[in-house]
Amino acid sequence: MTAEDTRYSRESIQAFAEQFPFFKLIGLEVLDVEPGRSKTRLSHRHDLTQPAGILHGGVIASLIDTGIAHALLMTDRFQELRSEGGALVSVDLRVKFFRPVSEAGIVCESTITRMGRQIIHAESVVTSDEGKEVAKGDATYMAIAGSRVQRG
Amino acid sequence: MTAEDTRYSRESIQAFAEQFPFFKLIGLEVLDVEPGRSKTRLSHRHDLTQPAGILHGGVIASLIDTGIAHALLMTDRFQELRSEGGALVSVDLRVKFFRPVSEAGIVCESTITRMGRQIIHAESVVTSDEGKEVAKGDATYMAIAGSRVQRG
Amino acid sequence: MTAEDTRYSRESIQAFAEQFPFFKLIGLEVLDVEPGRSKTRLSHRHDLTQPAGILHGGVIASLIDTGIAHALLMTDRFQELRSEGGALVSVDLRVKFFRPVSEAGIVCESTITRMGRQIIHAESVVTSDEGKEVAKGDATYMAIAGSRVQRG
Amino acid sequence: MTAEDTRYSRESIQAFAEQFPFFKLIGLEVLDVEPGRSKTRLSHRHDLTQPAGILHGGVIASLIDTGIAHALLMTDRFQELRSEGGALVSVDLRVKFFRPVSEAGIVCESTITRMGRQIIHAESVVTSDEGKEVAKGDATYMAIAGSRVQRG
Repeated sequence: MTAEDTRYSRESIQAFAEQFPFFKLIGLEVLDVEPGRSKTRLSHRHDLTQPAGILHGGVIASLIDTGIAHALLMTDRFQELRSEGGALVSVDLRVKFFRPVSEAGIVCESTITRMGRQIIHAESVVTSDEGKEVAKGDATYMAIAGSRVQRG
Repeated sequence: MTAEDTRYSRESIQAFAEQFPFFKLIGLEVLDVEPGRSKTRLSHRHDLTQPAGILHGGVIASLIDTGIAHALLMTDRFQELRSEGGALVSVDLRVKFFRPVSEAGIVCESTITRMGRQIIHAESVVTSDEGKEVAKGDATYMAIAGSRVQRG
Repeated sequence: MTAEDTRYSRESIQAFAEQFPFFKLIGLEVLDVEPGRSKTRLSHRHDLTQPAGILHGGVIASLIDTGIAHALLMTDRFQELRSEGGALVSVDLRVKFFRPVSEAGIVCESTITRMGRQIIHAESVVTSDEGKEVAKGDATYMAIAGSRVQRG
Repeated sequence: MTAEDTRYSRESIQAFAEQFPFFKLIGLEVLDVEPGRSKTRLSHRHDLTQPAGILHGGVIASLIDTGIAHALLMTDRFQELRSEGGALVSVDLRVKFFRPVSEAGIVCESTITRMGRQIIHAESVVTSDEGKEVAKGDATYMAIAGSRVQRG
C-alpha cells in the first residue's frame, strides 16, 4: 500500500498480504476482509508443528493476531485515525486452545465486537478444515491519536 | 529426542532446538533451560515484522509459548507424566503488549509460577536487547494422564 | 439442596438461590437456569457502587462467576461428576468492562461454550436494564474426579 | 474525600475506606496504600461463601479489583488526571484461582507493574492467613483525559 492510499480496499489488502514477508514465511492467507470482519487461513506445514506433530500454539496466536488486525483495517475508525497520523495498537491477545491440530489447515474468523473511542475489543474463532473448533481468541486494541503513536 | 530418552537434559533440549524446523523458520533460540525456567531469544528479522516495521505480535506470542513449554520440559512433573504416556497441554495463552520493537532482538524469561496436580501456571517477561520491557505473557497448562492424551 | 438430591432441577436451584446468604447480601437473583445456560440479575443498590457512583467491578465479576456456575449446575457432566463425589472448580475468570453502570440493574446471560472432558469454557454477556452492553466475561473450569477434589 | 482534596493521602484513603458502604458490606479493609501499591484484606464470613463453604470467586475478584484501584490512587499519574477532570477506568480484570479458601481471611497485595501514558497494568497476589497462595489477579486500566470520561 502506498502512502497515497487514504482508504484500504479489500483488493489492496489482499494484494498486499500475498507478497507480505511474514505471511509468506508461515503461509498465512487473507481469504476475506471487510470492515469489522476478516477470514484468514493457514495450511498445514511440517515446519509449523511442535515436536509431537501438532500445530504450534504461537502459530495459532499469529493467525488470530493477524485476523483481528485485518478486521480492523477497513473500519471507518481505523481509516480516520490513520489519515490523522494515529494508529491502533494491540494491548493484549488471549488464546484458548480447545483441540490439537495435526494434519489439517485452519481458518480463523475474526470480528470486532466492540468499537469504543479508545478501546476496541475483538474475537476470533479458529476452525480446522474438518470443521472442528480448534481455538478461540480475543484481543484488546487501543486507539492512539496522531500526536503520539506509541504502544502502551 | 528418541523414544529411549526418559529424561530431558539441558544438552538434549538445546541440541533438539537447534535443528527443530519451527525454531529455524523464525530464528528462535533456546538460550537456557532448567526445571521450571527457560530463556529463549529471537533476533530481529525483516520477515517477522508487521507492515509498520515492528515485530509481529504473533511472533512474540510464539516466543512466549515456546519459552513456557521449555520451562516445563525438565520438571519432575512433566518427566513423570511423559514416562507414563501422559502429557501437558496448553489451555490458554495471554500476551500483554507493552512496547513495539523495531530493530532489536528480544529475550523471553519464563517461569513456572504454580505447579498444581492438574493445572500449571506460568509467566514470561519479554525484554528487548536494549533492556526495555516489551511484553508479558502467562499461560495455563493442564496435565493429562497417560490413558487419554487429548487437549481440552 | 440436601444430600439426597442427585440431580438439580430449576426449581431446586432457584429455591436455594433465594435464601442463599451471599446472593441475599448483594441482591443477586437467579432468573433462569437450564443445562449450559443461565440468566442472573443484580438490582442497582447504593452499597454496590464505587465512590464515583458506578457499579463496582467486583460486583460485576461476582454476577458473572455466579452466572457461569449456574450454567454448569444442570449439565449432565456436572451431575455425573457430583454423583461420583467429584467437582467442577474454577481455574480462571476474566471480565472485560465496556461501560460504567450508574443507576440501572444488570442482567447476565451465561453460556457453556465448550464442555471438554477436563476443561470447560464459558462466556457471559452483561447488559444493563437500558439494554446497553456493560461487560463480557469468560471463565475456565476444570473437572475433578471424585478421589481428589482440590482446586488447581 | 471532599471535592477540595486535590491529592489523596494514606490517611484520607483509609478513613474513607472505613466508612465506605461496599467495603462495609463485604468486610473489606484497606491495610496499607502507597503510590503504586496497596494491601487489602477480607475476613472470613459465612455469607461470602459458596454452597460448598469456600470463599466466592467474585469476592476474591472484588478484593483484587479494589486492591488495584487503591494502588492507583496515590500515583502522580492518577492525581494529575483527576485534577484535570480525567479518570482511570478499568478495561479488564482477570483472576487465576489457585486454591479454595474455607475458614481463613485473605490478604491481597497489589502492584502497578506498568504505568503507560494511556494503558496501566497491575497485578495482585492473594494469600490466605495461613500463608498459602490463593489467587493471582491482573488488570488493565486506561487513562481518560478530562474532556471525555467514559469507559471503553
